Amino acid sequence: MRSTYAIEHIKQNRHNPNYLSSVEFDTTKLLLTNDINEAVAYADYVIFAIPSAFLSGELEKLTVSLENKIIFSAIKGIVPETSLIVGEHFHKTYNIPYDNIGVITGPCHAEEVALERLSYLTIACGDMKTAKVMAKNLNSHYIKTKISDDIVGTEYAAMLKNIYSIAAGIAHGLGYGDNFQALLMSNAIREMKKFIKKVHKMKRNINDSAYLGDLLVTGYSVFSRNRMFGNMIGKGYTVKSAQMEMSMVAEGYYATKSAHKLNEEYKAKTPIIDAVYDILYEGKEPKKVFKKLTEKLD
Amino acid sequence: MRSTYAIEHIKQNRHNPNYLSSVEFDTTKLLLTNDINEAVAYADYVIFAIPSAFLSGELEKLTVSLENKIIFSAIKGIVPETSLIVGEHFHKTYNIPYDNIGVITGPCHAEEVALERLSYLTIACGDMKTAKVMAKNLNSHYIKTKISDDIVGTEYAAMLKNIYSIAAGIAHGLGYGDNFQALLMSNAIREMKKFIKKVHKMKRNINDSAYLGDLLVTGYSVFSRNRMFGNMIGKGYTVKSAQMEMSMVAEGYYATKSAHKLNEEYKAKTPIIDAVYDILYEGKEPKKVFKKLTEKLD
Repeated sequence: MRSTYAIEHIKQNRHNPNYLSSVEFDTTKLLLTNDINEAVAYADYVIFAIPSAFLSGELEKLTVSLENKIIFSAIKGIVPETSLIVGEHFHKTYNIPYDNIGVITGPCHAEEVALERLSYLTIACGDMKTAKVMAKNLNSHYIKTKISDDIVGTEYAAMLKNIYSIAAGIAHGLGYGDNFQALLMSNAIREMKKFIKKVHKMKRNINDSAYLGDLLVTGYSVFSRNRMFGNMIGKGYTVKSAQMEMSMVAEGYYATKSAHKLNEEYKAKTPIIDAVYDILYEGKEPKKVFKKLTEKLD
Repeated sequence: MRSTYAIEHIKQNRHNPNYLSSVEFDTTKLLLTNDINEAVAYADYVIFAIPSAFLSGELEKLTVSLENKIIFSAIKGIVPETSLIVGEHFHKTYNIPYDNIGVITGPCHAEEVALERLSYLTIACGDMKTAKVMAKNLNSHYIKTKISDDIVGTEYAAMLKNIYSIAAGIAHGLGYGDNFQALLMSNAIREMKKFIKKVHKMKRNINDSAYLGDLLVTGYSVFSRNRMFGNMIGKGYTVKSAQMEMSMVAEGYYATKSAHKLNEEYKAKTPIIDAVYDILYEGKEPKKVFKKLTEKLD
């Protein structure tokens, strides 16, 4: 954890002072540190769970080798410095083989996990044996796990869904209703399929829970930071003021820029991503952009 | 309309006394009657929009020929007497050619249409020219239309989604959260695809708005009668008491029985439909049935 104050607070009170504060930790099972080297040296399996925008900076502090470590990402975003998803970033920047890289993906809002509501995770890894080990360890009476070999696809889906969630929020903020929201999600999953196919073509069912399920939970849930962020934009907040109002980072904000940039190469037809990009980065008026977007959807 | 009282009320007050009462009708454009023969004799295009359970009884009163009439269904259910979807019922029972039969489908809750919120319709018909005529006539500044030649698939989707919406309601009533709801919808669309493929195999994208969009609007919306009905069942109401509490018919209740019966022949793997059937028709306990169902989903 970055904050030493939060670490001390958890040690003394067994609760995180900032997020999901109702959850009680068994501190005897935790090694709490703000030193990435101490954490990595201690662990065989490392799960990264920080906003993607801060990952590169944290990793620069790393002096301990990542060789032979199993690295899982729960981040779901693009590393801005390299425009790579987290798995690719570890593979290309740190030479970690894909067999040692994995992704943990939903549909799984942390808020409901904290409430012990039944949730399903997909554990994707190049090495199916490693995926199984991780799946077994994350399994519990309220968490069911399945495994997948589609590291790239699941991680791109997890990243893209945040953009579609912002779009859903903007639509809601502009006054579009449930009928349009359903139409938007139906278009979003088709757009996502096209995009991911360009990035990494393989046999996958885009309606599996790691893709469609993850899109829906984020696009529909009131817990979603990205949807909340989009909603404020739709209601007329500027990007800056919406960000200031929210104490948490909306991953989709960065994802939009990265996906848009990546798509200059892939050239998938992505009217929804383009619309969100135009609003967030080109200063275009949400109402006008969405009016045009409605003509392109079906 | 069946009720002469409602007809008189609309004539005098320009509002329906029972449903969407805020909508104002231009009564100079309406021919209001409770006589199906008068309505059919007058019209070239006939849109049926009554609960599927009452269709067969109404049609028995028909003495005017349906020959050369264009028949559209906005019903989205199965005719209990013949276990056929409405299009099939007209085709097989009244020898109407498929070129004269069409389906109007969503994602499109009437409540939001009444509020003039942007909504999209799919108009399916055996004859594309007829589909275009109907699409053009239903088009407006808040209704966008697209056409399709998949009469059977769109109508089955519209029928099946009501069952999945009951399932979503039951899950909610039992205390499952948003994570599970997303997982359920992701499984539902895969199940729907398998079922429809068995009924009528053709090239279709199950993520098009007439299939996935329609499923989502019903499965997520607070307006959905089927979801409301399921929610009451999940909360412990008996089927009978839930039906008595609701003044409107939950189409999915009949659809569940019909789909279950049809599937004895098709033998698609449909754990969600089976679960809803077991609860509604076999008197099994929702909590136990859903616990088992969660083991079958992924």
